[in-house]
Amino acid sequence: MAILEKIRSRAARSAMGSVRLGIGDDCALIGPKTGEELAVTTDLSIAGRHFRLDWHPPESVGHRALARGLSDLAAMGARPVAAFLSLGLPRRLTVASARRPAWVERFLDGLLALAAASKTPLAGGDLAESPLAVADIVLVGAVPRGRALLRSGARPGDLLYVTGALGGAAAGLAELAKRRPGSPRIPKKLEAVLAPHLYPQPRIAQGLWLVRHKLASAALDLSDGLSTDLAHLCAESGVAAEVDSALLPVHPGATLAQALNGGEDYELLFTAPATAHLPRSIAGVPITRIGRITPARAGHPAVTLLGTRGSKPLAPHGWEHFS
Amino acid sequence: MAILEKIRSRAARSAMGSVRLGIGDDCALIGPKTGEELAVTTDLSIAGRHFRLDWHPPESVGHRALARGLSDLAAMGARPVAAFLSLGLPRRLTVASARRPAWVERFLDGLLALAAASKTPLAGGDLAESPLAVADIVLVGAVPRGRALLRSGARPGDLLYVTGALGGAAAGLAELAKRRPGSPRIPKKLEAVLAPHLYPQPRIAQGLWLVRHKLASAALDLSDGLSTDLAHLCAESGVAAEVDSALLPVHPGATLAQALNGGEDYELLFTAPATAHLPRSIAGVPITRIGRITPARAGHPAVTLLGTRGSKPLAPHGWEHFS
Repeated sequence: MAILEKIRSRAARSAMGSVRLGIGDDCALIGPKTGEELAVTTDLSIAGRHFRLDWHPPESVGHRALARGLSDLAAMGARPVAAFLSLGLPRRLTVASARRPAWVERFLDGLLALAAASKTPLAGGDLAESPLAVADIVLVGAVPRGRALLRSGARPGDLLYVTGALGGAAAGLAELAKRRPGSPRIPKKLEAVLAPHLYPQPRIAQGLWLVRHKLASAALDLSDGLSTDLAHLCAESGVAAEVDSALLPVHPGATLAQALNGGEDYELLFTAPATAHLPRSIAGVPITRIGRITPARAGHPAVTLLGTRGSKPLAPHGWEHFS
Repeated sequence: MAILEKIRSRAARSAMGSVRLGIGDDCALIGPKTGEELAVTTDLSIAGRHFRLDWHPPESVGHRALARGLSDLAAMGARPVAAFLSLGLPRRLTVASARRPAWVERFLDGLLALAAASKTPLAGGDLAESPLAVADIVLVGAVPRGRALLRSGARPGDLLYVTGALGGAAAGLAELAKRRPGSPRIPKKLEAVLAPHLYPQPRIAQGLWLVRHKLASAALDLSDGLSTDLAHLCAESGVAAEVDSALLPVHPGATLAQALNGGEDYELLFTAPATAHLPRSIAGVPITRIGRITPARAGHPAVTLLGTRGSKPLAPHGWEHFS
């Protein structure tokens, strides 16, 4: 109950935008603008599966929980309207010690910092004691009616693009896994290497830009890894795809395998007609053409990887979290 | 993944209403009608806390998870638009045996039956393996702009009403607790006693009626118990309240203490000006006046219980689940 009041008071400090009623009633109330559709997504984060209490700083767990939801909004080209947080926590994570604030306070620090940066008010949620730490984040966004970026709009001949660089989150996670469990602090020199994993940046501005300029035919966010997510896009669009490995924007320090299969980069993967003129960067983030959409052929793999020594099927080898 | 496809195919069979895009993309899309606000609520259900795998039939766990969210919509006077389900389950609950379907299938049976009865399409969610069974349910509803029933609108002189009967869920839970753990089947003769606990009926129609007739000044749903929830209403409205114990519609088989403090009845508690004419029942459910709203007085209890032998403070003794 004390935590609830704390969350309510911290959340109340932010601008509410389209949220007409926030935490404190049976529901929050959201007033969409005329001509808008609402995009809704939920993402469950479970200790030991999506994060590890002995690996991840609490601020990162809060940031990543919200980033997953914001990235789903970005993939639809929606502007964030409100976030909701259902939190189940063991009591020990809610208690401050003499030396440091409670885990949940630092979790909220991370979550609310990203909420402020992305202008996303925390409008409600639920709270319960739980033997296992779980956080379900719900994002509500808004997009002009009929203009959302879907997974199902890619057509043969379209070109395939990604924002930013790939594999950085997997490379960061590999580095994180090498540390001694329970190490209290991330050393300065590791911060840059770990940042793509600990503090991924959802591509909200890039998604909004794509909707505004009506250039993308399909989009999704890279949460499970390129090989898995591109297979999803192909399945929903009823197409196949070729990826040119020489074109991939591999993150510095990451391997090609991490760029292809590492999850949680939260970059956007999108398609656009070959006639569309895409800029080299959108809102400061590079845009890279990595391949093209082809017709689906029965009995053939959905995704083909073109390399210097010919082509081969790219099977989904996506992110399986910590299982 | 197999479960996800199963949920998707089962959810796709229902009418989608205002849901323009359901399960399968990064977000669901909802198209509100002009002049509508959206109500959003999330409710976390955790094994061992909100339900017990060895006590509750899986159908009841699914029903109750959705009922909690629908009841929050009812308390705002909102019509259901979409539900989202984030589900974390141990693998054993997803596996069918030769003799019976998987726990998750029966959980979905219960959830989707109530979803169909309340015309609430399941529009999305998330799925993960988890050592602990957790289900976060998100409900999105719609209500005419500015007309939602809030907790904050009660004024001194207003009369206090409840729908249905109180204490039935607590009485049912007490009966459930007497059974041998792991008893496979609820005997026929116990079904009626257990029903208010296992299969509570959210008061959607009654909430919609109150909004349509503009009679209620404030409302909430009785999830934590009358003594606790009425204290919430008083706090949000800045008022106090008197409850007349002789007027309470105690559920047959329940005690006065269960009616006052037992949670999860999911009846509506609402206030209306003394000049308002409330019917004896709304959509087949009795409406009972149980007390009145009084001015808040510093140093005095928020809620007073009037009995045959005078009055006494009614302290919040709400539902603490299974803790």
